[in-house]
Amino acid sequence: MIIRRRSKSIKVGTATIGGDAPIVVQSMTKTDTRDIRATINQIKEIADCGCEIVRVAVPDSEAARAITTIKENTSIPIIADIHFDYRLALEALKSGADGLRLNPGNINDPEQIAKVVLAARERQAPIRIGINAGSLPPPSKPCASISEHMVNAALEQIELLESLDFDLIKVSLKAFDVPTTIEAYRVIVSKTSYPLHLGITEAGLFRTGAVRSAVGIGILLYEGIGDTIRVSLSAHPREEVTTAYEILKSLDLRQHGPILISCPSCGRAEVDIISLAESVDANLKEISKPIKVAVMGCIVNGPGEAKDADVGIACGKGKGAIFRKGKVVRTVAKKDFLDALMAEVKNFLT
Amino acid sequence: MIIRRRSKSIKVGTATIGGDAPIVVQSMTKTDTRDIRATINQIKEIADCGCEIVRVAVPDSEAARAITTIKENTSIPIIADIHFDYRLALEALKSGADGLRLNPGNINDPEQIAKVVLAARERQAPIRIGINAGSLPPPSKPCASISEHMVNAALEQIELLESLDFDLIKVSLKAFDVPTTIEAYRVIVSKTSYPLHLGITEAGLFRTGAVRSAVGIGILLYEGIGDTIRVSLSAHPREEVTTAYEILKSLDLRQHGPILISCPSCGRAEVDIISLAESVDANLKEISKPIKVAVMGCIVNGPGEAKDADVGIACGKGKGAIFRKGKVVRTVAKKDFLDALMAEVKNFLT
Repeated sequence: MIIRRRSKSIKVGTATIGGDAPIVVQSMTKTDTRDIRATINQIKEIADCGCEIVRVAVPDSEAARAITTIKENTSIPIIADIHFDYRLALEALKSGADGLRLNPGNINDPEQIAKVVLAARERQAPIRIGINAGSLPPPSKPCASISEHMVNAALEQIELLESLDFDLIKVSLKAFDVPTTIEAYRVIVSKTSYPLHLGITEAGLFRTGAVRSAVGIGILLYEGIGDTIRVSLSAHPREEVTTAYEILKSLDLRQHGPILISCPSCGRAEVDIISLAESVDANLKEISKPIKVAVMGCIVNGPGEAKDADVGIACGKGKGAIFRKGKVVRTVAKKDFLDALMAEVKNFLT
Repeated sequence: MIIRRRSKSIKVGTATIGGDAPIVVQSMTKTDTRDIRATINQIKEIADCGCEIVRVAVPDSEAARAITTIKENTSIPIIADIHFDYRLALEALKSGADGLRLNPGNINDPEQIAKVVLAARERQAPIRIGINAGSLPPPSKPCASISEHMVNAALEQIELLESLDFDLIKVSLKAFDVPTTIEAYRVIVSKTSYPLHLGITEAGLFRTGAVRSAVGIGILLYEGIGDTIRVSLSAHPREEVTTAYEILKSLDLRQHGPILISCPSCGRAEVDIISLAESVDANLKEISKPIKVAVMGCIVNGPGEAKDADVGIACGKGKGAIFRKGKVVRTVAKKDFLDALMAEVKNFLT
C-alpha cells in the first residue's frame, strides 16, 4: 500500500494538484506555439489520450499572445513555460495562461520575479519552480552534491515567493541522472509541503526514455512522493501521456482504460502468442473502461496464472479456453480466438 | 547510492549470481526448444545483445535432449524450465543444463524433488525456486495476502532443499501486480540470504510491459534487492535484454553501450530534434563502449543542460554547437549535424 505524502492542494485552472487529488498526468506540446492551429490540434490529440494539463513553450511575445486563441479552442489547463525573459510570463498571464513554469536558473532577479508573482497572484495562477540539474543558479552556499544544490535552489525560490505573500507553488527537481533526481525529491519532502511535479529530464527516445522515466518516477511514487508527473520523451507527446498512465497503473495509482496481461511466450506455447497479444491490444484501443484482459500461452496453466484478469484466453494446440476471473467459460477454435475474446470483453463490460 | 543486500553467491555454469557479482541479465527463448537450429540462433542473437543466461522451456523429453546440441553450439549458461514432470528435470541435467527452474506450484512431491536435488547436486547445478502468484501450491497455513503465500511457498521449498543438503538455490517471487511482487521480495530478504531473481510476470507487450517491469524491478533494485533480472515481455527476447539493461543503466548498476540523453523538444526547438535523436540512436548501435551522448534543442541552454554528457550537440536555427563535457568545441552547419556529432563520438572514444 502506497501512503501518499500529504501535500498542499493547488488549482491549475480546472485541475487540482496535491492534497487528496489523483496524481495528475501532464505533457508539453512540441509544436511551435506560434503555429496556433498545430498547437491546438496537438493539445486536442493528447487531451483525448488523457493528458490533464499541458505546457507550451513561450520563446517570444507572439507565442505568449497565441495562448489566448489556444485556450479558446482547447479544454485542458495551459501552463506557460518561461525562460530568460520575465516579461513573457506577464504576457502569458495576460493571455490567460493557467499557470507558469519558471526556471530559477535563468530568471533570478528578485525584482523581476516580484512583478511576475504580483500578476500571478492577481489571477490565482500557480507558479512551478522548475529546477533542472543542468541549468542551476549559482549556489548561494557550498553544496555537497548536485541534488543538494537543486534542493537549495528550490528552497530559496520558495522563500522568495512566500516573502511576496504567494503560496500557489509547485516544485520540480529534474535531472537526467535517476539517483540524483530521487535524492533531491527525497530530501525536499522533509522541507516543504508544496505539491511536487515529478520527471526525469531529457530521458531520451521512447524505447529508452520510457524505461528510465518509469524507474525514476516509479521509485518516487512508490515512496508516496509526487502529485503530478510528466514523462519527457523525444517522441510525440501522446507517448509521454500513455507512458505516464502505464507508470501510474502499474502501481494502482490511477485507472486508465484496459490493462493487457500477456505471457512472454516460450518453447511451450503452441500458438503465436505475441501476434495474438498484439491483435488484442489493437482491439482494446477502442475501449476506454478499465478491464484486465489476459492472453496466455498455456491452456492448462493460463486461466489460473491469469486469475487476476477479468477476462482472458489461454491457448493450446488448435483450441483456446476463454475464461473469466480464472474460470473457463468456453472453449473456442483457433480461428475464433480474437473474436471470442473480444466478445467476452464486451460482454463483461455490459 | 544503492547499497546492495548481501546475498550468497552461486555459479550457474560460467555466470556468478549474488555476492559482489554485477546484476546478471537473463532472458528466455521463445522458439520451440525441439527446433534446435532456431533455438541456437535465438540464443546467439540475444547473447550478442548482452544476455548472460538463457532459459529454455522443456515441455517433453525431446526438448530435454535438445539441450545437449544447443549447449554445444552456444556460449551462455542454459537453464531448463521445468513444470509438472520432475523426470524432465533429470533428463535436462543429463543433457548438460547448467541449472533448473522448478515451480513448487506444479511439482511438489517431496520424493520427486529429492530425486531432482540429488542429480542437481552431483552436477553442481543450481535450482531456482520459481514462485508465481498465479500457480501457487496450496497454502500450508493461513496467509493474510498473496505475497505472504508466495513467500511461505518459497521458504517451505528452501527448507526442503536444505534438508536434502542442497544450497545452490536462487529464488524468484513473480506476480503481474507490481505492489504484490515488491511486497513479497521485501519480506523474503529478511528471511533468507539466497540470491534473488527479479521479474514481473506476464507484463505484456513491449510498450506497456517494459514500463511495468521498469517500475517493479527498478523499485526493488533501488532498495538493494536483486541479483539477476529477467524482463518478461510478449516480444522478441532481444527486447527483454535491452530493457533489462536500460533499467540497470538508469540506476548506474551496469554499463552497457552508449546512453542517449535527448531533450523532449518543445515549441522552442528550431530543428526536428526527435528525428535527429533517432538518427543518432541508430548510429550509436554500432558502438559498444559506454559513452553518454546528448542531442539538445537549445543552442544556448543545451551544452549546460547536458554537461553530464561526454559529447553532444545543441541545435539552433541552421547551426549547431558540438560540445564535450559541457564545453562547446565547434559550431557546425545543419547539414553536418549528424556527421559532426558522430565524428566527435569516435574521436572521444579513441
